[in-house]
Amino acid sequence: MRNITTFLIALLICASGYAQQALWGGETIISPEIHDDNSVTFRLNAPNAKKVEITGDFLPPLKIETPRGISEAPGRAELVKNEKGVWEYKTEGPLPSELYSYAFYVDGFRTLDPANVFMIRDVATVTSQFIIGDGHADYYIVKDVPHGSVTRRWYDSPTLKEQRRITIYTPPGYESSNETYPVFYLLHGSGGDEEAWIALGRSAQIMDNLIAQGKAKPMIVVMPNGHTQNASAPGESSREYHPAMGGGPREAVATMEDSFGDIINFVESNYRVKKDKANRAIAGLSMGGRHSAAISAQYENTFDYIGVFSAPPISAVRIADEAERAKAVDEFVKKLEVQQKNSFKLYWIACGNSDFVYQELPFCFKKMDEIGFKYTYRESDGGHIWRNWRIYLTEFAPMLFK
Amino acid sequence: MRNITTFLIALLICASGYAQQALWGGETIISPEIHDDNSVTFRLNAPNAKKVEITGDFLPPLKIETPRGISEAPGRAELVKNEKGVWEYKTEGPLPSELYSYAFYVDGFRTLDPANVFMIRDVATVTSQFIIGDGHADYYIVKDVPHGSVTRRWYDSPTLKEQRRITIYTPPGYESSNETYPVFYLLHGSGGDEEAWIALGRSAQIMDNLIAQGKAKPMIVVMPNGHTQNASAPGESSREYHPAMGGGPREAVATMEDSFGDIINFVESNYRVKKDKANRAIAGLSMGGRHSAAISAQYENTFDYIGVFSAPPISAVRIADEAERAKAVDEFVKKLEVQQKNSFKLYWIACGNSDFVYQELPFCFKKMDEIGFKYTYRESDGGHIWRNWRIYLTEFAPMLFK
Repeated sequence: MRNITTFLIALLICASGYAQQALWGGETIISPEIHDDNSVTFRLNAPNAKKVEITGDFLPPLKIETPRGISEAPGRAELVKNEKGVWEYKTEGPLPSELYSYAFYVDGFRTLDPANVFMIRDVATVTSQFIIGDGHADYYIVKDVPHGSVTRRWYDSPTLKEQRRITIYTPPGYESSNETYPVFYLLHGSGGDEEAWIALGRSAQIMDNLIAQGKAKPMIVVMPNGHTQNASAPGESSREYHPAMGGGPREAVATMEDSFGDIINFVESNYRVKKDKANRAIAGLSMGGRHSAAISAQYENTFDYIGVFSAPPISAVRIADEAERAKAVDEFVKKLEVQQKNSFKLYWIACGNSDFVYQELPFCFKKMDEIGFKYTYRESDGGHIWRNWRIYLTEFAPMLFK
Repeated sequence: MRNITTFLIALLICASGYAQQALWGGETIISPEIHDDNSVTFRLNAPNAKKVEITGDFLPPLKIETPRGISEAPGRAELVKNEKGVWEYKTEGPLPSELYSYAFYVDGFRTLDPANVFMIRDVATVTSQFIIGDGHADYYIVKDVPHGSVTRRWYDSPTLKEQRRITIYTPPGYESSNETYPVFYLLHGSGGDEEAWIALGRSAQIMDNLIAQGKAKPMIVVMPNGHTQNASAPGESSREYHPAMGGGPREAVATMEDSFGDIINFVESNYRVKKDKANRAIAGLSMGGRHSAAISAQYENTFDYIGVFSAPPISAVRIADEAERAKAVDEFVKKLEVQQKNSFKLYWIACGNSDFVYQELPFCFKKMDEIGFKYTYRESDGGHIWRNWRIYLTEFAPMLFK
């Protein structure tokens, strides 16, 4: 069998319709089926349906309106009934290497693919998943290389006055060595939590593969929960949970920025880490990108590597009132001047050219250029999507601690 | 608001229909809604459907035939359209405290509850979940108590000639203490993998809560993958994955029993543990129960605490050929005689009285009684189901290391 990827082969083999029955010998549906040329067939057994559609990020995107302006949503296509009465859709051609998300609509009713056990939650949305290898998505696949460990644990935040859940990747060999390691703080967006970078972000697989290839240094990756009104991902806390994009169940005691010192203290007193600026990196996507910019400015001389993915490095650009905005921007630019003076090794800003954030960047760049702030800009195709954030992580991590 | 449980409140609040839209202000469906009296209403928006049913383990079970005899399957009930055109089903009364699983059938098409982000995979079956507290299921809920850490990592198995994935619970305070801890090896059934006890088994929540109440000693809980033909849960390995109840992608190099020494070696050389018989326990459900019986007999003087959940302690009872069975049973009984002579502190066998395993036990007990083997038998209601296994864990863990 050709080397597609475990993940894919897994999908082919373990696909099993209404699983419980299948285990006892029932009929099985293979979906998605990744063909040798990386085209894909999706199948759904819905004998009573009049119309079955698929929505996925491999289809031409639709334009949708959001409170932040026009954005993109996954496209749709119709399935047709095959000779066995099973609904089918085959992609028009091979799919490029990527981790894809999809769902079906059965007579307008949205459902996951019952033949595919791979599904990932993003806030309150769950989608079915598959990976096409033979390209950059090979970084997202579990390969036969040394693996780091992923621990879900709790740290004490005196600032937020609570225990908070955190996800920590330690590189291969961490447990059996006496070495100290650099630390990379990796922050999620407003739709995420401490599971986001591990699940949709494939951060453990990306780090394992980059380290195995000698492209990234072994490092500890710290993935906290950036919503200070929540203590954890849903179901993992003794507090009420509210999807954060719609607000929290209580007022946060303090901001992510003001409480971030608790996370650094926890990591530096519980892990064998190098405790200097040259060995600390911080990056994040969307809200996490704004956090990274703000935290790296607020905690002076703390981070040598800063990554701002799909976010304006000067958050204040979003303030509606002109006078208020001008004042807040000026204040932040003063912090950037200090940050520039204190120096850093890398300030990396990445954004997709159809992201709604894209239009906020020229203003930020102008302000930063005026003070000679030395950032690097990486522009990609696409919108405000995980596809870009995984790629950015794959490009950013190799530049750290060198 | 009354103290239902976070998990439940989470469900109420974060329920959000077609989530992505809901985040941007769309209409929301609340499902499941747990009422003050612990009755539950389920809702589904399927405007084009002619018939919507719910299947769940809170409904009167159906009898089904399996290769091992008659077993139980979750019952079904019909939803009705309410005045808003949303399908609804309300339970006939309050539900007892439990973690429940369910799914919908829309015109015969099985689907998860799109308003509920809590779903758990068991082999290739994914179901929606919710917890009713105010009873024994309070052990399954994340409470405001000190939390242990849960790590997914990889160990080397020289016997199986590969790296294998393993899930390890370390008790609260493990990282910051210099203490050594007892070890509890907790094994899954043929439908599971190294994620089973953590996900459906709620083992981390059960241990956190038992330890916080002083009912169980702080201990390390080791949850390996018991299918030696697989290296890990689906999608977590570089090898092909096959749901194990249908066989593996390759012949296993060795059995779980013969390779178990690798796991003990890994744990005892990588964790601060007490390395004597009095500080080792092993238990498992179904296939894992048979593993526990076989491993505790094979590794002489290694375990003082043995738990066999929903499994015949003498596996050979299942051999069809009478002469072959008699021979294999005799051989195993000889091992039990040695185990009895070497002594142990607890040999706990638990089974539901409608489990298909139930009928295999009298033969095993007769054989064990003949040699004066000192086991304890715990009989519960119900079948071969996670509901029982969670309860058994809650009862077994407090008896360990005392």
